[in-house]
Amino acid sequence: MKIAMLSPLSWRTPPRHYGPWENVVSLLTEQLVTMGVDVTLFATGDSLTRGKLAWVCEHPWSEDASIDPKAWECLHIAEVFRRADEFDLIHNQFDFLPLSYSGFTHTPLVTTIHGFSSPLILPVYKKYNEQTHYVAISEADRCPELDYIATIHHGIDLTQFPWREDAGDYLLFFGRIHPHKGVVDAIEVARRSGLRLVIAGIVQDEAYFQEQVKPHIDGSRVEYIGSVEPKKRQEVLGGALALLHLIHFDEPFGLSVVEAMACGTPVIAYGRGSMPEIIRDGHTGFIVADVNAAVQAVDRIASLERRTCRDEVEQRFTCQRMARDYLAVYQRILDRRENYRPWGYYEDLLERDDHKIKEIIVKPGERLSLQKHQHRAEHWTIVSGEALVTVGDEKILLKPGRSVDVPRGAVHRIENPGDIPLVLVEVQMGDYFGEDDIIRLEDDYDRS
Amino acid sequence: MKIAMLSPLSWRTPPRHYGPWENVVSLLTEQLVTMGVDVTLFATGDSLTRGKLAWVCEHPWSEDASIDPKAWECLHIAEVFRRADEFDLIHNQFDFLPLSYSGFTHTPLVTTIHGFSSPLILPVYKKYNEQTHYVAISEADRCPELDYIATIHHGIDLTQFPWREDAGDYLLFFGRIHPHKGVVDAIEVARRSGLRLVIAGIVQDEAYFQEQVKPHIDGSRVEYIGSVEPKKRQEVLGGALALLHLIHFDEPFGLSVVEAMACGTPVIAYGRGSMPEIIRDGHTGFIVADVNAAVQAVDRIASLERRTCRDEVEQRFTCQRMARDYLAVYQRILDRRENYRPWGYYEDLLERDDHKIKEIIVKPGERLSLQKHQHRAEHWTIVSGEALVTVGDEKILLKPGRSVDVPRGAVHRIENPGDIPLVLVEVQMGDYFGEDDIIRLEDDYDRS
Repeated sequence: MKIAMLSPLSWRTPPRHYGPWENVVSLLTEQLVTMGVDVTLFATGDSLTRGKLAWVCEHPWSEDASIDPKAWECLHIAEVFRRADEFDLIHNQFDFLPLSYSGFTHTPLVTTIHGFSSPLILPVYKKYNEQTHYVAISEADRCPELDYIATIHHGIDLTQFPWREDAGDYLLFFGRIHPHKGVVDAIEVARRSGLRLVIAGIVQDEAYFQEQVKPHIDGSRVEYIGSVEPKKRQEVLGGALALLHLIHFDEPFGLSVVEAMACGTPVIAYGRGSMPEIIRDGHTGFIVADVNAAVQAVDRIASLERRTCRDEVEQRFTCQRMARDYLAVYQRILDRRENYRPWGYYEDLLERDDHKIKEIIVKPGERLSLQKHQHRAEHWTIVSGEALVTVGDEKILLKPGRSVDVPRGAVHRIENPGDIPLVLVEVQMGDYFGEDDIIRLEDDYDRS
Repeated sequence: MKIAMLSPLSWRTPPRHYGPWENVVSLLTEQLVTMGVDVTLFATGDSLTRGKLAWVCEHPWSEDASIDPKAWECLHIAEVFRRADEFDLIHNQFDFLPLSYSGFTHTPLVTTIHGFSSPLILPVYKKYNEQTHYVAISEADRCPELDYIATIHHGIDLTQFPWREDAGDYLLFFGRIHPHKGVVDAIEVARRSGLRLVIAGIVQDEAYFQEQVKPHIDGSRVEYIGSVEPKKRQEVLGGALALLHLIHFDEPFGLSVVEAMACGTPVIAYGRGSMPEIIRDGHTGFIVADVNAAVQAVDRIASLERRTCRDEVEQRFTCQRMARDYLAVYQRILDRRENYRPWGYYEDLLERDDHKIKEIIVKPGERLSLQKHQHRAEHWTIVSGEALVTVGDEKILLKPGRSVDVPRGAVHRIENPGDIPLVLVEVQMGDYFGEDDIIRLEDDYDRS
């Protein structure tokens, strides 16, 4: 199976510090490669992978002001679609823009929707709802107006987050500094609990940081340590008494929640978005409604087993489980391909009012049904392999370069008696070319 | 000739008040329709045209906050490329994003570059430089790193801008309120000339307007009349003593400069960008270097003939001239199409290592050269029309549904003796399929 994996250009894949989409793309890509899948990663040129790397834009635009996102994103996306024929499937983890290129290839597209930045982008997802396959990253993030092939929770690499038996003495905020993430709530809960708070993450809303967060930072009771690089993440997450995830938006998924749990650190979260799917209330953390309840949860945190948190992640949130789920989705999509048949497959090359052209590939030892058509005559030219052809009462063996006419209404069959694929060009002539104009008289695959 | 004309979604086509790109698209479209060209205008759903209107986005995003530009622009562009096969040519007046879809169709694309918003978008234009055709809107706006098929100055509809013999008593600023456009310079020139200044245009830079323009507006010496709808434009432009176009950027083209001149109003401009191409210094206005020189130019304005300004526009800047220039470009592109031949044309459907499939259309009464191939055998299936086929010493007439083998090395020819197009499917089999493997023995069109 050959997969093209399309990552965003905002950060390197995997990201140097922040970049959750790129992080998930990398975890999935590397795990698929480990499982033997042929993955070509379309990402920034400085990205790292054990698969094949394909790139047009060398550096992430979040780290290089000379890169215009709109200009390079369209070049990046056009490149994967230019090469679409090389792949069995394109896995889009880039948001909606690639959908608008999907009509120009027969290669199926599966799109992981990492969240909706605004309801105003929904028209694009709705427009391509029929022609593509959407994966939700949580049940909570499913949009009722779209159809999904699956919900697949993210998984992490457990080796990066070793379990730690003993809790530390601080509460932890881990995420973007933005009102959505509830930094102010975390500060309040820590203050009222009499515990130290460590804040980690990039500043995404500078005004919020300056006005509502920074005044509380004193380096002792409240400490801000900036964005944490991947290697140091386990220390910060594993050393906490609890992670405070008091979000003010419906978070589609929370990678840091799972990462904390992997280290044994339970999570106290508001029950919005995906939180009730990720946290088992009273086992791996507490789902709470407000600051008061969060303070009470901190008091009860010792009642939770740190081992339970780890076990939960080992069972439900590994990158191995994520990769298996995606592989199953890929396989379902490939099995459903319209032009695949038990005997082989075909490709439509051209359809006009009075004729249609197909290339047909018959697997060795297979044959199509004994059939006839009411609305078309056919003309077959063998281009490679050998064909055993039945037309009416005649049965003939055709080598490459030979051709045969199948008149309208004539009973006919084509069979590949050889041990290499049989390739033929079919020219249909008539007034209707639908697949439903096949009257099957006999079929190896019991189709009607 | 069937043209798809791709307009931006920022404003209606034609715009209700402001929208220079949409304005040019509309002028060209309507003029081409007048000249009998079959134009489908891809624009907002509320657009107006005498051609065919195609749309996916009903309203312009500049006039409706519920429309996410990025979401609707990709749907809009994908739609024209989805329908590409219906057109002989796509004319892109949308900026760079459509270029990234151009690889997915054989329909040629011509792109009018209305200007470069930033040097950072150049990589997209460079990437598609070979596969597309660029039109510059002035010599000054040509980028040395790109190839252009032509420079075509914009043209206007003269009936919308009647000539006015007598000058009014005010100086005019007409354009976006933005530092680029030099509103402050115009205010200073008017003050020192002791003349009234009328300012017309949308506010694009609010801070600039509030801090540097608004304090001067007193309703008598300096008057701001907002954005002017098309019908009132002739009054404002035609009634001015002169247009002050004291720009601080290399303006690719200046529609208002031409519109003013059409009404007989001369223009005083800094000599940046396209200004020296549009204004004939000392005849239709003055090209000046600074405010001092602009004040002196105002003093000399009566030395210019208002009729000369009109004559210049009638000769060089009508939408009729613009449409003729674009038609010539379209024709040059269509004449150059790779798969067009004197006898008809062909379409490549598929190419593999050992075979290639083409659809060939031979015009009535035409025939291909008498030829042979060293590296391929061919098999022809007639799907409509009649074919007179020569293979070796044999000459046979084939009707639809019939086929013929042309062995490798055999001398052959195909001719359409009928009065409808001959359509045939050609399956080439061999090890090389280049157009240079044609040994011509005789040719109606004297090709070697």
